[in-house]
Amino acid sequence: MEKLRDGYLFQEIRRREEEHRKKYPTANVITLGVGDTTQPIPQIITSSMVQKACALSTDEGYSGYGPEQGEKALRQAIADKLYTHVEVKGDEVFVSDGAQCDISRLQLLMGSNLTIAVQDPSFPAYIDTGVLIGQTGEFHEKTRKYKNIEYMKCGPENDFFPDLSITPRTDIIFLCSPNNPTGHAATRKQLQQLVEFATKNGSIIIYDSAYTAYISDDSPRTIFEIPGAKEVAIEVSTFSKFAGFTGVRLGWTVIPKELKYANGFPIINDYNRIVCTCFNGASNIVQAGGLTCLSQEGYMALCSVIDNYRENAKILIDTLTSLGLKVYGGKNAPYVWVKFPGSSSSWDVFTEILEKTHIVTVPGAGFGPGGEGFIRISAFGNREVILEASKRLKTLFK
Amino acid sequence: MEKLRDGYLFQEIRRREEEHRKKYPTANVITLGVGDTTQPIPQIITSSMVQKACALSTDEGYSGYGPEQGEKALRQAIADKLYTHVEVKGDEVFVSDGAQCDISRLQLLMGSNLTIAVQDPSFPAYIDTGVLIGQTGEFHEKTRKYKNIEYMKCGPENDFFPDLSITPRTDIIFLCSPNNPTGHAATRKQLQQLVEFATKNGSIIIYDSAYTAYISDDSPRTIFEIPGAKEVAIEVSTFSKFAGFTGVRLGWTVIPKELKYANGFPIINDYNRIVCTCFNGASNIVQAGGLTCLSQEGYMALCSVIDNYRENAKILIDTLTSLGLKVYGGKNAPYVWVKFPGSSSSWDVFTEILEKTHIVTVPGAGFGPGGEGFIRISAFGNREVILEASKRLKTLFK
Repeated sequence: MEKLRDGYLFQEIRRREEEHRKKYPTANVITLGVGDTTQPIPQIITSSMVQKACALSTDEGYSGYGPEQGEKALRQAIADKLYTHVEVKGDEVFVSDGAQCDISRLQLLMGSNLTIAVQDPSFPAYIDTGVLIGQTGEFHEKTRKYKNIEYMKCGPENDFFPDLSITPRTDIIFLCSPNNPTGHAATRKQLQQLVEFATKNGSIIIYDSAYTAYISDDSPRTIFEIPGAKEVAIEVSTFSKFAGFTGVRLGWTVIPKELKYANGFPIINDYNRIVCTCFNGASNIVQAGGLTCLSQEGYMALCSVIDNYRENAKILIDTLTSLGLKVYGGKNAPYVWVKFPGSSSSWDVFTEILEKTHIVTVPGAGFGPGGEGFIRISAFGNREVILEASKRLKTLFK
Repeated sequence: MEKLRDGYLFQEIRRREEEHRKKYPTANVITLGVGDTTQPIPQIITSSMVQKACALSTDEGYSGYGPEQGEKALRQAIADKLYTHVEVKGDEVFVSDGAQCDISRLQLLMGSNLTIAVQDPSFPAYIDTGVLIGQTGEFHEKTRKYKNIEYMKCGPENDFFPDLSITPRTDIIFLCSPNNPTGHAATRKQLQQLVEFATKNGSIIIYDSAYTAYISDDSPRTIFEIPGAKEVAIEVSTFSKFAGFTGVRLGWTVIPKELKYANGFPIINDYNRIVCTCFNGASNIVQAGGLTCLSQEGYMALCSVIDNYRENAKILIDTLTSLGLKVYGGKNAPYVWVKFPGSSSSWDVFTEILEKTHIVTVPGAGFGPGGEGFIRISAFGNREVILEASKRLKTLFK
């Protein structure tokens, strides 16, 4: 616990935003920092939650504890709708209150005596939960890295994917695609290399597909599209960015039955025991909403919300490109990853943008040393807000 | 992980119930096993969840991520309504998706290098999460105990409260009152002794008050009624049994600012970091319901549901007492704890009751070796079901 640095990144961003609002009480602050959804949830989905809540006040409709692993119908719908061609089974899906919570439960499964690799930059929860569980050594101020973690650099020089030829073996490899923060969706070829690498090394991949609904090209939607992945990978995902459920809370983890320890014992059995001991299931009201997200009509409604965020990303990309900046991501993810020229630290750029335009972003360095020099800009927002942000950015960098 | 015994108790009970239903497909099985609420949630409470769900489909009412620690209004309402005379502050309350989940987060806070004490018998999650986090040694088949855990025997001989004069010092003491499974509410004097013991030893008490709403006498409702408790105790609680939220999911943990490590660092700061790293807040829809539970009208409606369960407990107590059995609990908790004469194991008694009356209970030994010879019977159920159960028990033990 003592090793853990500072505050959690997004809490720190929120703290700085609050400070800024106090300093400029009349400023129209635009929040493109923490990747938080902004568009209303389609009514067909909230209606099913309303219906479930009403039922809980009736004798016939009341229910108490549900299965810790999630309602059977929802587990099956996730398998059928989101893993159609890769044959994930309903009982390999563990419904949860969100991907971040699942990551810490997976860390509990793995314990402290193992080695992990993360993309650099990466979503901070992989490292922070690893530090909490005791997997890491001390933090080095100079390198900005923890000991005992393998940081796999991902930048423009390697198409934002780890160079596996120079990556040492670790027990666990965290990989997020489409990536937060870089917005890069791993290609089929990249993922094939990764699965091969994990198979050869006896490593387990923890694949975070939280942004898969934003993929607009033919990049794989799930790691299980890659042959052999079921023997080496766990997939963590969420309704947060797919259905605007960031505050509603619903996610899932897929543990294939084929995934085994070196001694042949299925990992799914252990994960099931953890879920039953440390968790009591996602809210039944919320699960009813999740089921409707996966209905034909619910899914269509969500696609239109996502299209809207994608259009936002395009506006931001066009704006920043027109200013001569190097812009990545945004095509398969709701995040635009911008390289700033010069040697200013990304926290300085973050502060400059905030001070001069009242726009909250996230400094790349917050995601690890490999993010230095970059800024992540979120495409979540109402259209007018995104247009206003573009206008301000144009003025700042003209 | 390998040290952990069998399945989680309540999962095992459910498995046996399913098996029984398959064996006797036409039997009218009565479930008084897993302590699961059965009565509808008062409409005033579900209405506020309906309202919140509807708002999420509007531009004005939509919201994304909330504070990981819970909505400010709910934190304050918990402090004001449930800790009225003990001056808990809103920012000492961490709202969660349930007490069981909080216990595993507290275990993460504490880590593996410490010693714990639990009541014997006790709610199995304290031990099981401790085993998962690596606090314990091997399980001894003969004693039915894990190494490195202090089992504090609680039975009729010591008024169901640990004999602290023979209890060795541990870093953490788990105490549940009103107790699950014994139904005993610790008296003020007992809790004063405990706080004194923890203070003297530099131990932290993790006080589980999940059943506090069932107290009908003047036993303390919270550990913080005891002077000095804020320096040595954390309290974990839940809306599950208080508001029928077992499937809806909402709980909280109180960490007083006065509670510090030996080096003077406030524990609340570390817990806050864990909550922000491993959790993303309880569902916003559910929190809206929680807030209404604490309104005047919502609270009154819940008290009437609880009175109904209390009446159930009285019926069970009267029935079992009339059969000449020794019956404990039930007055301050929804559980009746029954001693069976003779040397049969509690799993045998469980099986006999199930086979001959189709009533699911929980064998005392499932809660630890100190529960051997007892059966826990839950008072959650519709009145007719409880009356029918009483009838069957009378026939069995007449």
